[in-house]
Amino acid sequence: MGKVNDLFGRELNVVNIGLSSMAESLKDQNVKVIDLDWRPPREGIPHLQQTKDGADINAANEEVIARIQRGQAVLRGMGIARQVIPGMHDRLFLHAGPPITWERMCGPQRGAVMGALIYEGLAKDETEAAHLAASGEIEFAPCHHYHAVGPMAGIISPSMPVFIIENKTFGNLAFCTQNEGLGKVLRYGGLGPEVTARLKWMETDLYPTLDRALQSLPNGIDIKSIIAQALHMGDECHNRNRAGTSLFLRAVLPALARTSRDNEVLAKVIEFIDRNDHFFLNLSMPAGKALLEPAEGVLGSSIVTTMARNGTDFGIRMACAPSRWFTAPAGMVQGLYFPQYSEKDANPDIGDSTITETAGYGGMAMAAAPAIVQFVGGSPKLAMQTTLEMYEITFSEHVNFTIPALDFRGTPLGIDVRRVMETGILPQINTGIAHKEPGIGMVGAGILRAPQKCFDDAFEYLKTM
Amino acid sequence: MGKVNDLFGRELNVVNIGLSSMAESLKDQNVKVIDLDWRPPREGIPHLQQTKDGADINAANEEVIARIQRGQAVLRGMGIARQVIPGMHDRLFLHAGPPITWERMCGPQRGAVMGALIYEGLAKDETEAAHLAASGEIEFAPCHHYHAVGPMAGIISPSMPVFIIENKTFGNLAFCTQNEGLGKVLRYGGLGPEVTARLKWMETDLYPTLDRALQSLPNGIDIKSIIAQALHMGDECHNRNRAGTSLFLRAVLPALARTSRDNEVLAKVIEFIDRNDHFFLNLSMPAGKALLEPAEGVLGSSIVTTMARNGTDFGIRMACAPSRWFTAPAGMVQGLYFPQYSEKDANPDIGDSTITETAGYGGMAMAAAPAIVQFVGGSPKLAMQTTLEMYEITFSEHVNFTIPALDFRGTPLGIDVRRVMETGILPQINTGIAHKEPGIGMVGAGILRAPQKCFDDAFEYLKTM
Repeated sequence: MGKVNDLFGRELNVVNIGLSSMAESLKDQNVKVIDLDWRPPREGIPHLQQTKDGADINAANEEVIARIQRGQAVLRGMGIARQVIPGMHDRLFLHAGPPITWERMCGPQRGAVMGALIYEGLAKDETEAAHLAASGEIEFAPCHHYHAVGPMAGIISPSMPVFIIENKTFGNLAFCTQNEGLGKVLRYGGLGPEVTARLKWMETDLYPTLDRALQSLPNGIDIKSIIAQALHMGDECHNRNRAGTSLFLRAVLPALARTSRDNEVLAKVIEFIDRNDHFFLNLSMPAGKALLEPAEGVLGSSIVTTMARNGTDFGIRMACAPSRWFTAPAGMVQGLYFPQYSEKDANPDIGDSTITETAGYGGMAMAAAPAIVQFVGGSPKLAMQTTLEMYEITFSEHVNFTIPALDFRGTPLGIDVRRVMETGILPQINTGIAHKEPGIGMVGAGILRAPQKCFDDAFEYLKTM
Repeated sequence: MGKVNDLFGRELNVVNIGLSSMAESLKDQNVKVIDLDWRPPREGIPHLQQTKDGADINAANEEVIARIQRGQAVLRGMGIARQVIPGMHDRLFLHAGPPITWERMCGPQRGAVMGALIYEGLAKDETEAAHLAASGEIEFAPCHHYHAVGPMAGIISPSMPVFIIENKTFGNLAFCTQNEGLGKVLRYGGLGPEVTARLKWMETDLYPTLDRALQSLPNGIDIKSIIAQALHMGDECHNRNRAGTSLFLRAVLPALARTSRDNEVLAKVIEFIDRNDHFFLNLSMPAGKALLEPAEGVLGSSIVTTMARNGTDFGIRMACAPSRWFTAPAGMVQGLYFPQYSEKDANPDIGDSTITETAGYGGMAMAAAPAIVQFVGGSPKLAMQTTLEMYEITFSEHVNFTIPALDFRGTPLGIDVRRVMETGILPQINTGIAHKEPGIGMVGAGILRAPQKCFDDAFEYLKTM
């Protein structure tokens, strides 16, 4: 049977809403049907306009959105974690997601802790590292409690170099490590001499080279501007960062050339970045963190300012209660796997990179990045539909981040716990997938929703405020 | 009156085909209506299957498409025009478009000839240059007659450095100058000491720096691959080349670092390229030329292998008759103008850059580049519609160049003179706009159609073969 075409000879595509059985007759005619995970608005959910204290929730949310949008995220420099992250000390290891103990940590996060202990010289092998991690001598804390974010396992140990992002409007700083690339890497729980050697090279060669270049740029590099441009170049700045990485290189290269002490090292630095289209992720993430933190503490706001996962728990925080985590078990990712792996190997959802969705890009902006489906699965139409759906649960649309294919409409900005509850639509996330055992690393990438329970609990909390 | 929304709350948009009056009632309801320049298939046009000689036109076209798609366009190096372009000599000046005399040249092409004579040291000022150009001592010939392409005025004079693209599959070479940037530049007819100084710097600093780097890369740089990637990053590789320029920089940078003799020069070279998102145009154009030339001379083919304009005439050539130009007066561009200019200042359509549309990108691939409308005008929906319409007049779809937003459908490839005639749809072009007087330079950018007469005449010729 032939394909069904529309007026212009284009193949007809149908979006089916609700029961998938309703689309059967179309499927029988060879029409591509996209089944949407859509439900009618839920009943019995009160539309909260005010908190118990009488705070106007919409007004509070307007203030949150204004603060996020007014922010300017600028890469100001780099430093060693123990020297630049306030409160960091020699036995403090930061991790992705909400607070967690060593005992409850998932495999890849344990792997990354062990690898970081070896990298730090605190353990000579994995057995010694696991023993030390379990001994109580190492303090674990969320990156998010230290103005930092970490992709996947998200381990920041004291000797690691970090990028320093300044929100110039508010003066706050945010921190993130340098991106190692894909595959067998520490942040996916990968362990081994090559992982440690790469981290050492990133400390001895990559960091000083980039740091010298950044020191020569008094105005830093405007990361918010690069995000805005990258959204016009097929990135969504979470799992597609090819344009962002390119634009960052363009911005830093003249300074790299002028401050180079050894052009062979410079060439290797450029090659390292060029071979890793995810390099910019570790700049788009702390940019999101820097932009969101000034919105924390706005009383009465129902907007989510943190979504983060440690691979065991998924946690969210609201602007109105920035120190209160609402957690639920981390979900499983639907996605594309590297050849030898399948979903049986997958760890649950992990990482602080959901800061991008929280800040109005990443999964929120998938319509800007149709080619991302080659990495995370799905179709360009689903990527488009994802963004359109996310407008249903966000309080606003970004004035600086726009999507050309949607006639330059602003990206969905500010996940509103109320709208999540009223619509039954959960935030869409795209993410890498780590092997569930420590030591192995990345096995794929995919998409999933944030867990309902976080929002149920946050909404209940909001009602009591 | 409010906007009319569809099921998802999106504003309803309607494409009106045919009489614009039919859309009035929708416009009255505040629905955005796009009026398409669409006409029903024309009557009285015979559907040619064979030439008079009995050649199977479809089979010939299949061969043309196969040759175009099998090509590999690789940047192999650089050289000075007089030394590397076969047949180039000290008094030969190449220009864009079909053949033309000095007397019939438009203002910006005259301006560029005068500027090139001054740059060559053959004239000391514009008066002397104009006198020399008119004297008969300078030979003018189309770039296309020398395996070359030139954007806008397209002047290649003997001392200019050129990129050398090799089609590795067939062994043929194509040539193009380095891109100067936008504004007051030679290729837009701009004249003045700053224009000459820039051209000299491009000869003394930019060219040797790039040349040394390229000499160190035995495999060259795969330009076809960069085009394919850039189409997934919001470029269409004619008037949007931000991704292509970025990816070219990424590809050449390690070699630039390793072969640098002076890092301050290197920094200035990188800054020059970084500040000009059109830099990659002068690589995407000769790549198209290198890919198309092997298809020239396929008897019986109705596919267009050249579209080029000299600012006075628009000319096309078919694969079946590669030395036969079919010309018509160059059209006027509808577009966006720089603040102090308007269409009264505009020269007609000019340049060899329509090689991109001929090779299956540029205007053909506007659906890949919705953000281009910020440069050439129109809307993202019109960009999408343009590509969909171009499928109506192309013989095939590219296997290597795909458009994510169209579910990775191949770009429209191979403008078929028969289908242009049968449908009444003319090829869509996007382009820069030059001031009509010599000396001034760029005044804007926009879109237009190729002229009907070229296709009328080509079709008549095809019928007689």
